[in-house]
Order: sequence, then structure tokens, then C-alpha cells
Amino acid sequence: LNVWINGRNRSTLDYRDRGLQYGDGIFETMRVRRRGIRLLDLHLERLYKGCGQLRIRAPDPLLLRRELERIAARRIEGVLKLIVTRGCGPRGYRPAVRERATRIATLHALPRATPDDAAKAVRLRVCATRLSTNPSLAGLKTLNRLDSVLARAEWSDARIWEGLMRDVDGNWVCGTMSNLFVRRGRDLLTPPIDRCGVAGVMRRWILQNAGSLRLHPVERRIRWDDLRSAEEVFMSNAVVGIRSVRTIEGARLGKLRFIGADTAQQLRSLLDRQ
Amino acid sequence: LNVWINGRNRSTLDYRDRGLQYGDGIFETMRVRRRGIRLLDLHLERLYKGCGQLRIRAPDPLLLRRELERIAARRIEGVLKLIVTRGCGPRGYRPAVRERATRIATLHALPRATPDDAAKAVRLRVCATRLSTNPSLAGLKTLNRLDSVLARAEWSDARIWEGLMRDVDGNWVCGTMSNLFVRRGRDLLTPPIDRCGVAGVMRRWILQNAGSLRLHPVERRIRWDDLRSAEEVFMSNAVVGIRSVRTIEGARLGKLRFIGADTAQQLRSLLDRQ
Repeated sequence: LNVWINGRNRSTLDYRDRGLQYGDGIFETMRVRRRGIRLLDLHLERLYKGCGQLRIRAPDPLLLRRELERIAARRIEGVLKLIVTRGCGPRGYRPAVRERATRIATLHALPRATPDDAAKAVRLRVCATRLSTNPSLAGLKTLNRLDSVLARAEWSDARIWEGLMRDVDGNWVCGTMSNLFVRRGRDLLTPPIDRCGVAGVMRRWILQNAGSLRLHPVERRIRWDDLRSAEEVFMSNAVVGIRSVRTIEGARLGKLRFIGADTAQQLRSLLDRQ
Repeated sequence: LNVWINGRNRSTLDYRDRGLQYGDGIFETMRVRRRGIRLLDLHLERLYKGCGQLRIRAPDPLLLRRELERIAARRIEGVLKLIVTRGCGPRGYRPAVRERATRIATLHALPRATPDDAAKAVRLRVCATRLSTNPSLAGLKTLNRLDSVLARAEWSDARIWEGLMRDVDGNWVCGTMSNLFVRRGRDLLTPPIDRCGVAGVMRRWILQNAGSLRLHPVERRIRWDDLRSAEEVFMSNAVVGIRSVRTIEGARLGKLRFIGADTAQQLRSLLDRQ
């Protein structure tokens, strides 16, 4: 059984857990590589930031890190998902402050089409479902993910890798499970994650490392025109890494094609050397 | 044990349940009165509407109704909470369409200060946390409730009954667990629940029955000025019913006092005769 709840090998959970009752928790989806966890420090940083912001009593950092590393060592390649909820409490939205957090770690196989196809550019579609806006939650990978669920339910064509999502004002922010990058010359644009969306760990790594490839990372709102005039578009995600985009298909917006994939390739090489 | 999961008396849940993984589900909180469920038809209507909108395979209506009535009959007065999630699935946002919904019914005692104090006007405060905006989810009582959780965590003073919440544009929409009504003359204003917030069952009942008290219900955005010029303000909630508001306290916005409570009282009498 590849599930550990509070460090114990079990697969069921108390129904009173606030993770279930209200989506009162956060999660991380991590890439297991050579029996280790890629970008573990960045994952833990976001996790503890989220616990702080939601005032969830986070698990002991040393204990958690050891537990994750021990679990990751069971697979050469794979995915390690960690959920941390506020824990159990009585009915009602109000947290009792004294709840003990629940942590649920699960080990999975890599999704198909990974990692061999990493260099292959993917097809994107445009989602009708908008991202949920809330500045108090933006950036965190909380368990409130119904916007992504509804957006991902919009298509079943397996040839479409991802769907692009807009905020309620029509800016393009991210995919259902990945962040968006747009290159024009040496400028590498990515939307700010200040009102909606998840601030991905791979996004963070790219922003930190873009300079070493002489790119200028810029966080700003992205409109359809920015996509249309892009030289290169790619998506990032902690499990899959960096995926070049070949086309974006929007029913009414038309279809965009991208040829450039150099920057994505360079970033991938850099990431592989991590 | 006052918990029934898929009709069986048990209290643990599969960790793969999408209700936990993504908040992929909805719930109803119902008032048990004289061993029956108040406004059951309205609750079921909202529940099935939500299942339809999220494409959750809803439980059989007849089976569900009987189950709820059987559970409610175990208490003279109380609260019956029902969660319906999409059920278990593999990792990933995409629903598999074939999931079997999970239903979790729990029976609780009435919250304190209910129902004897129903006629007592309450104190409200103003919350800093804004409501999450998403037109695709607005109105539904989904398991994505972190906005309410954060807002409810803002105060611990037991003398404050509820906190008023704004949307991201600054309109006053509802409380953390109740809907807002503002009376001026014969006009009964309540905010439209088209971009955020939960369309409460008690709110619906009030809108349906306001006419019989010669009130004109109007759904429109509510600004601070509307509250300031109100003759009467009250909050609604399926468990508690209708609570008159005595004061609204906002740190920077100042303090509003309300004296009128006639309409709330008339609605309460009408509700009691249901």
C-alpha cells in the first residue's frame, strides 16, 4: 500500500477531517527522480508558507523531510503527493486553533508520456471555466481545486495535453495543472499569481534560473495578443518539468502556432543537471 | 455513532475520495425539527442542481430522501449535514465520469444559542477576507470553503455572531455562514449570488415568501451606504432561521446600529408555521 497517513501505512481517514469538510488544507505534487525528490526545498518552502498563511499547525520540518525522503526512496521514478490538512474538528467553519494537522503521503507511477516525450511540443486548448479569484488564497496549492476540476472536465481528447485558463477579467494565467511562460526576444513573461492560480514550484525555479540563460523574467498580465505575438510558449509543472507548446486552440479565438522551443530546451537541460 | 457513509454506520473514508483531494463535492446543512427536516425539498433541489452542474452522479433521489428522513427521526431537534462527493478516482483533476458518488450524513446537536434566542438581535463584524469569485461555482455549497474558514478565523469574541463578507469588488454579499437581507420601506434587498457566495436555502424561502408579507424582494449589489440607510438588517441560515442584526462593527467603516426587527419577526412567525 503506497499511502501513509501521519506516517502510518493506512488508507482511510476520519470523516471529520477538515480537508474533506471544507477543503481546509494544502498539497504538493513532487517528482521522484533517482529515488530522490526534485526541488524538495522549494516544495517544502511553499508548503510551510501555505501552512503559515492558513494557520495550519504544520508537521515538524525535520520529521516531514525524512518521511518524504524515505518514501521517495521506494521508487526510482515517480510522483509523491503530500496533502496537509488542518486536521479534525467539530462542525463549523471556525478553526479551533488546537487541531493537529493530518498529513497524507502517496506514491504514484509517473503519468504516461513522461519523461521520454519531454522534448515533444504539446497541444493546448482554451478553457471556458475561469479561475477562482481570491487574493488571500492566490498562489497556494490549497485543496479548493474545483476550478481546475471543472476546467479539466471540459475535454477528453487525449491529444490535448493541457487547457489554458483565464481569470475573471480575461487575462491568461495558467493551465489546469501548469504555469504559463511566454518568450519574446529575451523577455520571459509569466502572469503574476496574486489574485488566482497556483504559484508552481517549477515556475519558481524557472524565475530563479532564467537569468543564467540571459533571459529577463517579467511578471505581468497576459492577454491574447501577447500569446499571438509570442516567439515561444511553454508550460511548467513540478512533475513533468517544462513542456513546449506547439498550438493553442480556442474555439472562437482561433488557433495559434509556435515554432520556437529553444528556451524551453535550454531550461530543460539546466534542470536535468540539477 | 451518528455518521452514515453510503448508508452504512461508519466513520472513515477512502483517502482517494475526491472530496478530500480537491474539495470535489457539495453539502447541505439541514435543520431537524420535530424529527423531520425543515425545507427538505429546497435542500434536495439545491443538492441535485449542484450535482448536475458539477456532473457528479447524484444518489437516487428516493433512496436519499428516505435515508435522510430516517436519520432525522433519531433526534427531536438538531442538525443533519449531508456531504456528496464525486467519489474515488485516480490522481489528477480530470473526473473519470464513472466515479460513484460518496454520501456522508452526520447528525449533530443544535448549535448553542438556538432556537430560544432566535428573537434576540445579534452583533456582526466586518471581515477582511474576501469571498472567492467564480461564476461557475457561485451559489453552490461546494466543499471549497476556505474563504469562509479564513473569514471565520478572524474573530474569537463569542459575542459576535457573524462576520459580513465582501466580494473582490467591495460589495457586501453575505456572512461566513448566512445570507444578508436589508429592508428599506417595503423593499427587501439581498445581493445576487451570481459571482460568489452560497445561495442559501433559507434565503430562497424568504424570497419565495416575502410577497405574502407585502414585501418587494429585490436582488441587487449592496454597498456600505445601503447598509447605513437600512431600516432593518437580518441574516438567514437553514439551521438558525432568521436573525435580526443589532449592530455591524467595522474597524475603519465605523459602527452601524439597527432598531427595526419587525420583518424578521414576521418571517420567523411564518417559518414557524411551516
